[in-house]
Amino acid sequence: QLAEHAAALFQTRCLDGIKLTITAGPTREAIDPVRYISNHSSGKMGYALAEAAADAGAQVTLISGPCNLSAPERVNCVNVVSAEDMLTASLNHLGEIFIACAAVADYRPVAAADQKIKKSQASMSIELVRNPDIVSTVASHAQRPFTVGFAAETQDVLHYAKDKLQRKNLDMIIANDVSNSEIGFNADQNAVTAIWPKGETSLPQASKTQLARQLIALIAEQYINKGASD
Amino acid sequence: QLAEHAAALFQTRCLDGIKLTITAGPTREAIDPVRYISNHSSGKMGYALAEAAADAGAQVTLISGPCNLSAPERVNCVNVVSAEDMLTASLNHLGEIFIACAAVADYRPVAAADQKIKKSQASMSIELVRNPDIVSTVASHAQRPFTVGFAAETQDVLHYAKDKLQRKNLDMIIANDVSNSEIGFNADQNAVTAIWPKGETSLPQASKTQLARQLIALIAEQYINKGASD
Repeated sequence: QLAEHAAALFQTRCLDGIKLTITAGPTREAIDPVRYISNHSSGKMGYALAEAAADAGAQVTLISGPCNLSAPERVNCVNVVSAEDMLTASLNHLGEIFIACAAVADYRPVAAADQKIKKSQASMSIELVRNPDIVSTVASHAQRPFTVGFAAETQDVLHYAKDKLQRKNLDMIIANDVSNSEIGFNADQNAVTAIWPKGETSLPQASKTQLARQLIALIAEQYINKGASD
Repeated sequence: QLAEHAAALFQTRCLDGIKLTITAGPTREAIDPVRYISNHSSGKMGYALAEAAADAGAQVTLISGPCNLSAPERVNCVNVVSAEDMLTASLNHLGEIFIACAAVADYRPVAAADQKIKKSQASMSIELVRNPDIVSTVASHAQRPFTVGFAAETQDVLHYAKDKLQRKNLDMIIANDVSNSEIGFNADQNAVTAIWPKGETSLPQASKTQLARQLIALIAEQYINKGASD
């Protein structure tokens, strides 16, 4: 019945005119002009959410790290590379609903070298510092939007996700287990559990396009409920 | 006249039946199941070389790191992720001509973590060890093919390239300056200097497809010359 419910929400364009921002893809943190640290996010889930949100009538801004995907139609796409760039773009586009789907690099090299580092030594180490936490920064902002985070984990997925929901003061968190290569980062399918302070629902394995519509319907419902109870 | 010369070499299928191996793209070195170190190589130059070599009649094996490109027709494509995987595949496909175009990661994390590393600290460091040097290993192999390397540098490009030609005992090196974003890693155009022990020639900025044909013609010529003088 979730699918039927989602269809009804899309028919009524449940997010008509709502400003909604989605971050997607990985970030890249420069080691030098040639090398970087990144992660296996393909951006597919975030792009699918952007398309579903636009279908539901939202004015969508998609803040995207480097991916090989075309921006969906009717979506304002802002391309960024690093976590710091993504934070700046996010603060410029907080919107009314903010979905932090990007796999932001947690750490970056202390300083990117100006020139390509020569491989002179048998071993070396890269000193890293924490990147800004984009979803926490957004969730604690004075103009705080309805804030949705993602938790991509390889173990104790629901435990970490619930902790993150509370610790970062989010309105919803979408948990997925990236240790299963059939779903998650580079796959076309995903299976997630959406958790919010008063409930949760598991969405079984489906295409990222189908899941995105179900998630946008859930987010719209919680967003509207929250507005009603505020 | 290089272009005319190249056209003639392609018409005569100057590499007919020759086994030619090309490595292309970046490699990815796992930090944990989610994160990796990589570089900005798009794979375009290597894929263009593979296509040009097939056009010249060679039996081409393309050993490719993760890129978003389709393998050219008539090319045997072997997909790899890490430098160690690329070395194994290279030793399994030495061929008669070996063109090391991939931007192999020089270093990899000492050990990839089994689980996603939690971001508990304000700073951290990643200990790295040198990866195997694929082109050197190939050039010093008992069944040494005619070996061509690439030198992608951001400063003193020709100096480093000539040093690398000699130090790694290569038959030819293709030098390009990746500090100019119009050419090199992610661009569709490139400009290179091909250097061999007894000469060099600069190929001005052109599409990677055009440059690939000129380079394959130069490589074929040096390969045939070397066979004649051995």
